[in-house]
Amino acid sequence: MTTFVVIGHKVTTEGKFSLNDLSGSTGRLDVLLRCVNSAFMLSNSIRRDVELYLVLLGEPRPPVMIHLKGQELKYLNPDERSTGALVKNALMKTANDVWQKSTPGIYVARKNLADVLAEFTGRRIVYLKEEGSSVSDAALTGNDIFILGGKDDLTSEEEEIIQNWPNTLKISLGPISLHADHCITVALNRLDNSS
Amino acid sequence: MTTFVVIGHKVTTEGKFSLNDLSGSTGRLDVLLRCVNSAFMLSNSIRRDVELYLVLLGEPRPPVMIHLKGQELKYLNPDERSTGALVKNALMKTANDVWQKSTPGIYVARKNLADVLAEFTGRRIVYLKEEGSSVSDAALTGNDIFILGGKDDLTSEEEEIIQNWPNTLKISLGPISLHADHCITVALNRLDNSS
Repeated sequence: MTTFVVIGHKVTTEGKFSLNDLSGSTGRLDVLLRCVNSAFMLSNSIRRDVELYLVLLGEPRPPVMIHLKGQELKYLNPDERSTGALVKNALMKTANDVWQKSTPGIYVARKNLADVLAEFTGRRIVYLKEEGSSVSDAALTGNDIFILGGKDDLTSEEEEIIQNWPNTLKISLGPISLHADHCITVALNRLDNSS
Repeated sequence: MTTFVVIGHKVTTEGKFSLNDLSGSTGRLDVLLRCVNSAFMLSNSIRRDVELYLVLLGEPRPPVMIHLKGQELKYLNPDERSTGALVKNALMKTANDVWQKSTPGIYVARKNLADVLAEFTGRRIVYLKEEGSSVSDAALTGNDIFILGGKDDLTSEEEEIIQNWPNTLKISLGPISLHADHCITVALNRLDNSS
């Protein structure tokens, strides 16, 4: 299982937003929606061996975590609007400490980055960052946990959590700073070609 | 200059569609909008050394070609809806044989694949296709013309045009069939890392 964790520091934590304004009034939820596309969409299927955690830290009730499991996902289409509708559904639920199912393959809970990392004991974190070492030097594996900032860099507190993890690799995917969704596409293509 | 050409066989050739239904009533314009994002959007800038041709072959007035020039592009944001609005603007013009400017960096004309290839004399075409040779065997260059089908495979007539081109390379980016926008992201990342 390949895991991606994308952090949206300002992304709304309630489902009242308009699907006609996904990039304006949502704290840039649109960035995370494109990450959903990159993580799961193949030409004629869905990547069943991928899961994605979206960490939503915007108002009014942070933190909210949305967990998408490729193995169970249904009703996912590649466009931003329909994925926005799925996330909106999940955010209509009142998140609490226990994962609640929203639609097939989409779960929601009141959890933060540290909470979810506790579920990954023994696995390696790959932190995608411009000043990391070159990806050609790193052997990515399909069991890695890739962590990315959505619109903004991670905070120093989040970086500390990652740096304190027993097994962390900090890598760069290239010389130019890419959007989070493009990083996911590139990382998965590298895994496809190495397996 | 790196050139991408993406063909949308059923994509609408008029600007009357609703921005609230980009993946439904437009013949899958949404696929091409994601290609615009992949071709140009960097984390904090635009790829100025890329250009993209969208070949629209749907009703009611095919063919329409939209040409996006990274060097001149303004008002481009990463989300599908705002890019949809830019394309809608371009399609509100009556396309004819001469390129007309719609907004900065976006031009529209009544041209088909053969017309636009005539502008590329002397350059190499890279045809991205599942059964092509492995990309690791191919040295991509920043001066290549990458041709992709948007939602569907190219027609046999389009394939013939490409195969008759003096200098054509047919490659695959990996063992799994990817969406067109993901192919563009991967190809550009490979170029970034090879330059």
